[in-house]
Order: sequence, then structure tokens, then C-alpha cells
Amino acid sequence: MTDRFSREYAQSLDQQDELASFRSRFVVEDPGLIYLDGNSLGRLPKATVDLMRNVTEHQWGGRLIRSWNEGWIEAPARIGNKIGQLLGAQPGEITIADSTTVNLYKLALAALRAQPGRHKIITDDLNFPSDLYALQGICALLGPEYHVQVVSSPDGIHGPVDTLAAAIDDDTALVTLSHVVFKSAYTYDMAAITELAHCQGALLLWDLSHAAGSVDMNLGRAHTDLAIGCTYKYLNGGPGAPAFLYVRQDLQPLLTNPIQGWMGQANMFDFGLHYARAEGLSHFLTGTPPILSTLAIEPGIELLLEAGMAQLRKKSLQQTAYFIELYDRELASLGFSLNTPRDGDLRGSHISLGHPDAWRIDQALINDMQVLPDFRKPDNIRFGITPLYTSFEEIYEAVMCTKRVVEEQLHLHYSQENAKVT
Amino acid sequence: MTDRFSREYAQSLDQQDELASFRSRFVVEDPGLIYLDGNSLGRLPKATVDLMRNVTEHQWGGRLIRSWNEGWIEAPARIGNKIGQLLGAQPGEITIADSTTVNLYKLALAALRAQPGRHKIITDDLNFPSDLYALQGICALLGPEYHVQVVSSPDGIHGPVDTLAAAIDDDTALVTLSHVVFKSAYTYDMAAITELAHCQGALLLWDLSHAAGSVDMNLGRAHTDLAIGCTYKYLNGGPGAPAFLYVRQDLQPLLTNPIQGWMGQANMFDFGLHYARAEGLSHFLTGTPPILSTLAIEPGIELLLEAGMAQLRKKSLQQTAYFIELYDRELASLGFSLNTPRDGDLRGSHISLGHPDAWRIDQALINDMQVLPDFRKPDNIRFGITPLYTSFEEIYEAVMCTKRVVEEQLHLHYSQENAKVT
Repeated sequence: MTDRFSREYAQSLDQQDELASFRSRFVVEDPGLIYLDGNSLGRLPKATVDLMRNVTEHQWGGRLIRSWNEGWIEAPARIGNKIGQLLGAQPGEITIADSTTVNLYKLALAALRAQPGRHKIITDDLNFPSDLYALQGICALLGPEYHVQVVSSPDGIHGPVDTLAAAIDDDTALVTLSHVVFKSAYTYDMAAITELAHCQGALLLWDLSHAAGSVDMNLGRAHTDLAIGCTYKYLNGGPGAPAFLYVRQDLQPLLTNPIQGWMGQANMFDFGLHYARAEGLSHFLTGTPPILSTLAIEPGIELLLEAGMAQLRKKSLQQTAYFIELYDRELASLGFSLNTPRDGDLRGSHISLGHPDAWRIDQALINDMQVLPDFRKPDNIRFGITPLYTSFEEIYEAVMCTKRVVEEQLHLHYSQENAKVT
Repeated sequence: MTDRFSREYAQSLDQQDELASFRSRFVVEDPGLIYLDGNSLGRLPKATVDLMRNVTEHQWGGRLIRSWNEGWIEAPARIGNKIGQLLGAQPGEITIADSTTVNLYKLALAALRAQPGRHKIITDDLNFPSDLYALQGICALLGPEYHVQVVSSPDGIHGPVDTLAAAIDDDTALVTLSHVVFKSAYTYDMAAITELAHCQGALLLWDLSHAAGSVDMNLGRAHTDLAIGCTYKYLNGGPGAPAFLYVRQDLQPLLTNPIQGWMGQANMFDFGLHYARAEGLSHFLTGTPPILSTLAIEPGIELLLEAGMAQLRKKSLQQTAYFIELYDRELASLGFSLNTPRDGDLRGSHISLGHPDAWRIDQALINDMQVLPDFRKPDNIRFGITPLYTSFEEIYEAVMCTKRVVEEQLHLHYSQENAKVT
């Protein structure tokens, strides 16, 4: 029987992997690079290469303005509906629009204005900071009676479920959390937390940026009210690709997009001088969408749909568990801490390792080892596992390279400085 | 001497045109197509084809996340500064961000909040409707004491300068207008109108969507406070390309972006939990920019800088005057009206013709004549003149085709229906 901690074992897992062939659907310019940052920027699908040549050179270059009537104007809704299939939303509940932060602003402000007697937004300190900034801006805008309550995680890893439950009260308009948090990959029980908010009459807005395409969810069954998320991580939509927003069907007429624009206008090409909101989700659109970046999202979603979220989640859990098993044996004694939950139900698809020398180790992995994770201040290295294209052998190799960096002190060649990181 | 109303004369004008060679810098997939809609979507620069292949296939596909540190993160400021060179702004006064409407929302709301004693926004009924929608949304948000006053053009063509002057008072926080208006191409005197607002202590925000790259301006010399604009018309930045925003240097610390996000955070990669605004213009950024659509903007700007705005404006005026001369002789008697100012100083770079059958004539031009202008309800055909690639012969041909459509009643084959138009 093969040693569970050998490269051969990793290779045997790859041979048994039913999703292994999907790797060949992505551009891999440098096969020697172990890319474990798909949780920041997903790889480029090969289908996107052909699509973007066509979009740029034929649709823009050749068809010019006519392309708006040949697929462009419907693209945000069409691609949104495909994301909806992935996340368990109904058609007409998800659209592509703006950036994640702008979408959070629109939906959170709408949620507060729809509940004038409630003044509190609750979130946690594991949420992505940009979300907190937007919420703080909203409260500053609405007046001093509004505030954001940031509930603290007990350990910087797990979500503060009990404290959240206690904090949600009848002054709470909105609870907003990252479904999978960006540092530790802790994953909230979507239905349970939504229910907590609903019990107090509050709305819940999920940030799905690290969850869409990484964990299996069903927005409908979880009775989710509102959600936003980015498309450039596990959805492989391209750098900074426009975000998506979700508004449950029955809530759509009750909420008002504060950033009114012509894409949300009924009969926009009538050019009426007074805003008359479009029906349904279109109301939550604002300006003209960036078409190159919008259309680039579609092939990545199609790959996920083809693979199936249940299968992807199963492989993701197997791969992150495998990483943790290797961590326990190879890294735990080298000053690392596991900053990601061991319980698979509470874990997204990346692994965070803490280390006092994390920044330098990250530098050595990138520059000396051809392993590309990412670094999050002050002391976290995140290893993103993207089951569409990450192999078990890459995970094995990444752990062994990390071990080698520390054992051979390769990271000491890097000065601990406040370098740029993404 | 050549007949001024002959094709040969048009050809002779092309031969004398010092900018004629710029046409070869654009993709022209169908040389038979007379494209007069560069005021809606500019043509594709050839340099953009190569750039987008590189950005997609190498920067995203190969360099992956590392590209953020290899040019992506600086792109909005870098490209903004190039637009600044074109518009007479200082470095650090223009950046690429979001959509035009989102930028209007950010800057107009910031302007109102900075002047709490003033409650009025003044605009005109020639402004682009999306701008009015955003302003109406802002007033609804701020409360019943706030309102938008929409001053009416005397004739639907010319800006209501006198009425504007009378309307601006000490309750006016903001005057916001399109510098070149989208239907008639009427062009305001930027410095004079700005001065009118300043005399009453109000701020002025210009929408430069139809002006950037079409008229020669100097934001600094006009003492402009705030501006926004799109990049996909005369700047040739690609379909729905992200917009730009301008905030004069001394106003930057006085205004607060209501949509706070991590791109506007000081030391964003510290991931602090409290918003601390970045210095300067960066504060007005919000979320992650769509990189494919953002980078595609740059080659078009470079072509304009190479040609020079003064030269482009000179050719544009010559071309629109030539169009009007042909109109007077060939079209005026066929039921058309000239809905664009005859005075060059008051005219941008497109010509609007009214006609009771405008929609059907537009359809016949597109489908039978290979001439592509655009239609604006209820009865306007807009012919966009883009001096970087529009030839005099194309203008001649477009006018003669329009004449032929009406004389031969080709438009009567099209039913007058409420078809989709862009």
C-alpha cells in the first residue's frame, strides 16, 4: 500500500479524480508554477481566450454599436442567471453589476431605508474590510442614530455565532457577513444565520465573494434575502471582473436602489426626464456595464456548471482535508498554526497558515519554489484550493516546498519589509 | 475649380487632411460601412487588439495574480492622468473609476454634503437622462428639503444659459450639465457657466461624456470643480469601458466619497477594520476595477494625444460645417430640420437631424445604405463625426444616401415600430 505521505499517493489521488480533466480547459502558461491563489484571481479558461478575441476584434471592431442589440445588453442578466444556477437562485434573482463594494452599498442602503425604525447593522471582524468601509459610509450618510456593530470572532478563525445571535435585536435592520471569510475560510451555516436574523425581523445580506464556486449553497432553500459577490475568484471571470448581486424575488419591489441610473430605468431608450424604475432586478442596475470584463465572466461559470457544484465541493473538501493532513505531519512542528477550521462543514476552499515569518516564507515560496499562494497581514499565508484545476500533487508539492523553505531557512534571505502584496 | 458639392471635392478635402492617416490605426473590418456612431461607441484601435491579447492571454493567463503588482493596480490613475493631459487637468486630478452614473452619484452627493446649508441641484432638460435619475435619487435620499431644478432649453437645441443664470442662487449647492449635450451637440461655454455658479457660491459638475475627445477644453483654466465622463465614445475605450472622474486638487480633501471601499482606503493591504481615507484622488475609488475593460482604454487616449486635441477640434469643426453645408443644399428641403447649432463655438462633434420619419430613415440607412448613424427618440438621427477616422468622403456619402432614402422613399419599407435602439 502506498505511503499516504508520499508523492506517489498524491499522484494516485489525481488518477482517481473524476474532475482531473478540467485542468486542461484552462491556460497553463507555466506548468512548473504551482498556483494556489485562485481564491484571489482564478485562472484563465481556454474558452475565454477565444471569446475575448471574438468580443474585441469582431463584436467591437466589426459589429461596433450593433453588438448592443446582438447580445451585449442582455449579458448582465444572462450571466447572472447562470450564476443563479450555481448558487440555487431563481432566474431573475441574480445579475452582474458594478463592483462588489458598490453592490453592497446599494443593497445595504436599500435595506436600511426599507426599515426606517431600525438603525443597526451587524457584522463581524472576519468580514472583508471593504464591506465594513461601505457600511460605515452608509451610517455616516444616514445620521448619528445609525451604527455598525462589529462582533468579534473568539479566535480570529471561527465566526462568532453565539455573540451574533445575542447582538441581533429589534433595532437591527441588517446583518451582513461573508459566507466564507477571507482570511480563515470559516464558513457560516447560511440557513441557520439567516434564520437568526429573520427571527428578529432583520434582513441578511451575504457576501459570497469567497463562497461562490467554492462551497455548495442554495440561496432559495436558505431563504436568503440579499447577496453580493465577486466573479474573479472561484468563478474565474478575470481580473476585477464585475460583481453580482442577488435580491430575492419578493423583496425586489420593496427595495429602492439609491444609485439610480439609466440601466435601471423602465424603457431606458425613451430617455424620459424622470426616473421610473424598471421592473424586477433590472432596477438594481445603474450605469453602462463594462462589456469586455462582463462577457469574460461567462466561460468560467459554464465550466463550473459542467463540473457540478456538488462534485466540486466534494473534491474541495477532500483536497483541503489532504492539505491539513500533510500540514499536521510536515509543518505543524515548524512554527506554523492552522488558521482554518478542521471541521469541513465550517471550511471553505482555502487554507490559512499562520507563522511569525509568514511574509518572508511567502516570498521564498514565490521566488525560490515556484509556489504561488498569497499573504495576508499580519502573519497569514493563504493557500487557495480550486478543484477545477488544482491537483493533489500540487498540494503535496506546496506543503513540501513550504517545509523545505523553513527547514533550510530560505526565507531568511528576504528582509521583513512592508512590501506590496495583493 | 471643383464643384463644392461633388464627391471629388470631398476627396480633395481628404487629400489635404493632415489627420487622415490616423484612420489606418483603427480596425476597419468592413470598409464599405460608413460608421457615424463614434459618439456612441468609438472604433477599435489596432493597438488595442494586440494589447488585449497580451492582457488576457499573458497578463491574466500567465502572470496571474502577480500582474496586480506589474501595472494593474496603478492603471486607473495612470490612464486618468493621460485623460488629464487631453482635458487640461493636473496629474492626480482624473482617475478611471466605476461607471459615469456611479461617479456622478459619488461626486454630486459629496458636493451636497459639503454644503449643508444649500439644498438645490440645477441642471437642464438637455442633460443625459441617467444624470437626472442619479440626481433625483440623491435628493430622495437626503430628504424633502432637497430638490433638482430642471431648467428648460428654449428650443430643445440650445442650452438655456439665461434661465440657468437666473436660477442659480444662494440655495444652490450644485449645477451639473453636459458640456456637450447628447442630442443636439450644443456645447456650453465651460468657463462662463462655471463662473456663473461660482458667483453664487455653488459648485459645478460637468458631464464630459460627449465632450472628452471631441472638443478642446482646459479644465484648469475654466476653474472646473468636478467632472465625470465616459471613455467609450470619442476616447475609443471600448464598449461600456469604465468612466473617469475629475476632482480639482484643492477640493479633494473637502469632499467625502459616500461609497467607501478598499480602493479608497489608506494602506488598503493593512486590512484595517475602520475606513481611513486615502490621500488625494484615490479616496474617490471604491471597489476593484474591471481590468480588461480598464486597460483597453489606454491605446485610444494615446491616439488622441498623438493627434492633438487642437488639431482634432479643428478638423471636427471643418467636418461638421461641411455636413451642414451639404445638409442645406441636399436635405433641408426634404422635411429635415437641423437640430444642432450652426455656430461652431456652440457645437460638439455630432450632427442631429430631425425628421417626422426619422426612425424609418435610420433603418433604411443602416439596412439598405451601409450608413450607420444612431436614432434618438422621438425624431432625431445623430451623425457622429470622429475626426480620428471619419473621412470627408464618408460625410458626403452619408448625406447623399440620406437624400436618396427620402427621395426614393426607401424608408417606407420599414414599419414605424418601437424597436430596440441604442
